[in-house]
Amino acid sequence: MRKKQLILLLSSIAIAMTTLAQNPIERVEPPFWWVGMNNPNLQLLIYGKDISKARVTVNNPNVELLGVEKVENQNYLFLNLAVKKDAKPGMVKIEFDFPKGKQFIYSYELKPRQEGSANRKGFDNTDVVYLVYPDRFSNGDPTNDEVDGYPDKLDRKDPYARHGGDIKGIENHLDYFKQLGVTALWLNPVLENNQPAWSYHGYAITDFYKVDPRLGSNDSYRSFVAKAHENGLKVIKDMVFNHCGSQHWWMKDVPMKSWFNLYPDYKRTNYRIPTTFDPHASVADSSIMANGWFDGHMPDLNQRNPYLANYLIQNSIWWIEFAGLDGIRMDTHPYCDKHFMSRWCDAVKNEYPNFSIVGETWVNYPSWVAYWQKDAPNRDGYNSNLEIVMDFPLMIALQKAFDEKDGWDTGLARIYEILAHDFLYPNPNKLFIFADNHDIGRFQPDSSMALGRLKLAMAFLLTTRGIPQIYYGTEILLPGDKSKGGDGDIRRDFPGGWANDNKSAFTSEGRTKRQNEIWNYMSTILSWRKTASAIHNGKLTHFIPENGVYVYFRHNEEQVVMVILHNGYQPKVLDTSRFAEFLSNKSYGTDIITGKRLDDLSKIQLSPRSAMIIEIK
Amino acid sequence: MRKKQLILLLSSIAIAMTTLAQNPIERVEPPFWWVGMNNPNLQLLIYGKDISKARVTVNNPNVELLGVEKVENQNYLFLNLAVKKDAKPGMVKIEFDFPKGKQFIYSYELKPRQEGSANRKGFDNTDVVYLVYPDRFSNGDPTNDEVDGYPDKLDRKDPYARHGGDIKGIENHLDYFKQLGVTALWLNPVLENNQPAWSYHGYAITDFYKVDPRLGSNDSYRSFVAKAHENGLKVIKDMVFNHCGSQHWWMKDVPMKSWFNLYPDYKRTNYRIPTTFDPHASVADSSIMANGWFDGHMPDLNQRNPYLANYLIQNSIWWIEFAGLDGIRMDTHPYCDKHFMSRWCDAVKNEYPNFSIVGETWVNYPSWVAYWQKDAPNRDGYNSNLEIVMDFPLMIALQKAFDEKDGWDTGLARIYEILAHDFLYPNPNKLFIFADNHDIGRFQPDSSMALGRLKLAMAFLLTTRGIPQIYYGTEILLPGDKSKGGDGDIRRDFPGGWANDNKSAFTSEGRTKRQNEIWNYMSTILSWRKTASAIHNGKLTHFIPENGVYVYFRHNEEQVVMVILHNGYQPKVLDTSRFAEFLSNKSYGTDIITGKRLDDLSKIQLSPRSAMIIEIK
Repeated sequence: MRKKQLILLLSSIAIAMTTLAQNPIERVEPPFWWVGMNNPNLQLLIYGKDISKARVTVNNPNVELLGVEKVENQNYLFLNLAVKKDAKPGMVKIEFDFPKGKQFIYSYELKPRQEGSANRKGFDNTDVVYLVYPDRFSNGDPTNDEVDGYPDKLDRKDPYARHGGDIKGIENHLDYFKQLGVTALWLNPVLENNQPAWSYHGYAITDFYKVDPRLGSNDSYRSFVAKAHENGLKVIKDMVFNHCGSQHWWMKDVPMKSWFNLYPDYKRTNYRIPTTFDPHASVADSSIMANGWFDGHMPDLNQRNPYLANYLIQNSIWWIEFAGLDGIRMDTHPYCDKHFMSRWCDAVKNEYPNFSIVGETWVNYPSWVAYWQKDAPNRDGYNSNLEIVMDFPLMIALQKAFDEKDGWDTGLARIYEILAHDFLYPNPNKLFIFADNHDIGRFQPDSSMALGRLKLAMAFLLTTRGIPQIYYGTEILLPGDKSKGGDGDIRRDFPGGWANDNKSAFTSEGRTKRQNEIWNYMSTILSWRKTASAIHNGKLTHFIPENGVYVYFRHNEEQVVMVILHNGYQPKVLDTSRFAEFLSNKSYGTDIITGKRLDDLSKIQLSPRSAMIIEIK
Repeated sequence: MRKKQLILLLSSIAIAMTTLAQNPIERVEPPFWWVGMNNPNLQLLIYGKDISKARVTVNNPNVELLGVEKVENQNYLFLNLAVKKDAKPGMVKIEFDFPKGKQFIYSYELKPRQEGSANRKGFDNTDVVYLVYPDRFSNGDPTNDEVDGYPDKLDRKDPYARHGGDIKGIENHLDYFKQLGVTALWLNPVLENNQPAWSYHGYAITDFYKVDPRLGSNDSYRSFVAKAHENGLKVIKDMVFNHCGSQHWWMKDVPMKSWFNLYPDYKRTNYRIPTTFDPHASVADSSIMANGWFDGHMPDLNQRNPYLANYLIQNSIWWIEFAGLDGIRMDTHPYCDKHFMSRWCDAVKNEYPNFSIVGETWVNYPSWVAYWQKDAPNRDGYNSNLEIVMDFPLMIALQKAFDEKDGWDTGLARIYEILAHDFLYPNPNKLFIFADNHDIGRFQPDSSMALGRLKLAMAFLLTTRGIPQIYYGTEILLPGDKSKGGDGDIRRDFPGGWANDNKSAFTSEGRTKRQNEIWNYMSTILSWRKTASAIHNGKLTHFIPENGVYVYFRHNEEQVVMVILHNGYQPKVLDTSRFAEFLSNKSYGTDIITGKRLDDLSKIQLSPRSAMIIEIK
């Protein structure tokens, strides 16, 4: 009895001594979490003045406090929690006891998960991805064009200023994407970029848990994803782990020196990605590659820092779970610590086994790209765990193939040669393929260019192996020349996306004849592609290009599709005897672009500079 | 007792019935063999009119006749023998019994092996290989310039006729090679090419067991190899398995239809080597690649034919053993059946575990070359067993690197990028490296070209990873422009190789000042290289080229060598702080080209268009 009395006595003294502290906490990240995740561990970053002086206790049946970690900066504290297996959703009280008896109680929310969240299916070979620049597509909410506290202002005449496009603008055009026939949207980054300039580009993130208010809000982003899903469109989030913006709140009160690489004195990266696997690379070069800054306004994050590592992993899981994402596109993937990136892919797949991640593996040779694909037989033993990699070499080939004479390794042979490297990839179907994107000169920089080359490129992209991506505006010949106008010029506003635009390319009436020609061409193929199982999961077999003609087949047990790319400027009759392994015993074909039936498959009439996609019966 | 009497009786009847046949045998190949080989099996090709009608018996304690195989053409017979483990050298009587009691006894020789033959050491990274065109180097024996029965005649004015060079001519200049400092000789093929035209090139073999009499004889070839060995020079034999000459004796009486591919109606190969590993290749393309003929005058051999397969394997072992070879260079390696080639490499290594084979892997991309190197982690499971592959991509890079402005992927960056692909190779040190060869435009097509680029290329080749090869005449600026004069022009006669030549480049007195400048330059590096262990077995570490300067180190525990390639046209001072990982705590260096000592390694003065090879102490 004496013991109990003592405890009661001490308790009342404690209560007597405790006064409620003013909320000392500026940030808790992740801001909330979920019960029922596969990994029970959760590390909270707590930020607040002198927060590390607090003693932290958690008394909750659903959560165990495993440890509290202090770091260099006393304004940061990291709490290691374990969410119990059968934890119930609800608020978890975290008690912060400061010297002099001051106390603060923070209520941390554990939410219930959406039904089926863990088993969500990512994007795959059945999809065609449409890449949209949020600031440049459509201004759905003019009230957020300028926001207090965000100095980078609207100026549609300046290609590097903000133009007012936003998430609402994209959401308003879900019908447009459906009509065109794409099945997934990749938005360039939507998180806060509260930078003094160039903030429209989105890659200088200043808050990893907040959608930029000029684009929308966390909730409007989540609601956009939900509406996209209702319309049969998947959403891929562009994430950046390599760096943050120079105005990120961390920069004003750095958690610890090792949070960043080469901080505070920065060196620019050498951009030589091969130093990460070149057996001859010097220590100096490899170190500058991974630790150098991508740009002066983007401090390089050190993913080897264990707190930051947890932070980034949790951040991506948080967005998947919160917004209901279908995929992630990871920016500057090879510039991050490669061992961390492998662990990150693994951690995401641990929660979402069918989720899709594509990494921006921007290197010029297939063997260098292949190094980054999951299960590549790398001599250094490295396994990226990254399933989908970007086929930059194919993009380079495409940008040249239709503009030069066909030769041993020029013209169509460029495409053929890139595909003949596919033995390097553990899975060539998991290549993300494109003719251009927001960083690359537009495939048709000038809207007056002949349509033949664009049709050839699109017919190819939409029928070869891999997951195609189309850059917004391609379908309406939106011009933009990086070599002349820089990045700003290839990120022009989509006509009709702004209320006062004098014409709209969103409707056939608003499009020119040429715009409609290419729009209908792409839409026809996209629509057909949705149910073309040979494109989704068939084998690819190609034939060496001859005389400016490249022929390949996509085939499975249900369907045989013959694709003919004719790069020449004269009509031609194609003798198909070379293709007997696919055409013998077949009776006719249907060109899915024109709808015409071909009764004689032995000789096929080719128009100049054109593609045919023929279903063979 | 009755049994013995019966046998005696039958024997005397048999003797009584046998008459000696005229020698019905035109060829037995291999013409002789050795006791004590690792593989006891030996398959003899017997060629003679109606030879398959004979009953064959072998009654010898050293050899067992395992089987006799008849084929389509009754003039051929294949005898499967097993040479017993403890067999003694000597003659083996092979009895051929024909119908009507005719008999012929053929004495087949089993020779003793040379001491240590099995453990001969091939060529490796300590070597520098000098490639010599036998018909074009030196005429050591004018009596064999024209030979009865060989219609392709001497005409030194015709770049595609024979010029009279021979094995004796090469043998006469062993001192020259030693002075220059190369350590191994690769001769283009020396076997009989009794073709009506272009026979000088050697790749249309008409007898796989006979040195072309216009070059010498089997014995003179063997004696040449022995003399080369006495002079510390290794010899590499150029072999051709993909095809033979249209005048090969097989063509006059084809053993069986499947001895050749696409016979008698030939199709030319498509030369698309990737069809052998491209997962998307069509059956039609892969088949034409491997089975198509390299040229109309060179019938394509079908190595899938089991008799031909044995024939080729035994042929190469025969030449190694007979002539005392140090290595093989295999022509058109990827054009042969790849599974056979793997088996062949294995069979040679089974007899000579330390022997060296290099295959002509003529493809443009490192990943394609890497496919052919032993133990490459190929997805199709293929293992070539070929240890040394040819670095054609590096040759392509070298031919451009010194003639253009240095940029992200131009100039020296071409070389850097090729080496940054070395992670693909199971063993990058086993790459055969060269700036040109008998098929490629000469590195300096015009003898008046500036020497800087050639010096840069040679300094690089002789110090980077791999086994360097120099094409004859490079050291004396022998001109030749393939783009203008074709193959004949890059295979010009070495000046001084013919008795009536008006000058000789074999002596410094006979060489021009410029010739001596490059000769001495190469000789200085070659001589130093002979004992430079860091080049032989050291690691390579390179630094990203910057401002037209490419720096790399070769280093092991004994030696550190710094190589600087300066591609620029202006003198420059190189700040070496970037290279601290090799230079810190070092006190001085010696430029092995000039012999000059560098006391200040922090700043190094670079001459325009020049290389430095600095031993660091």
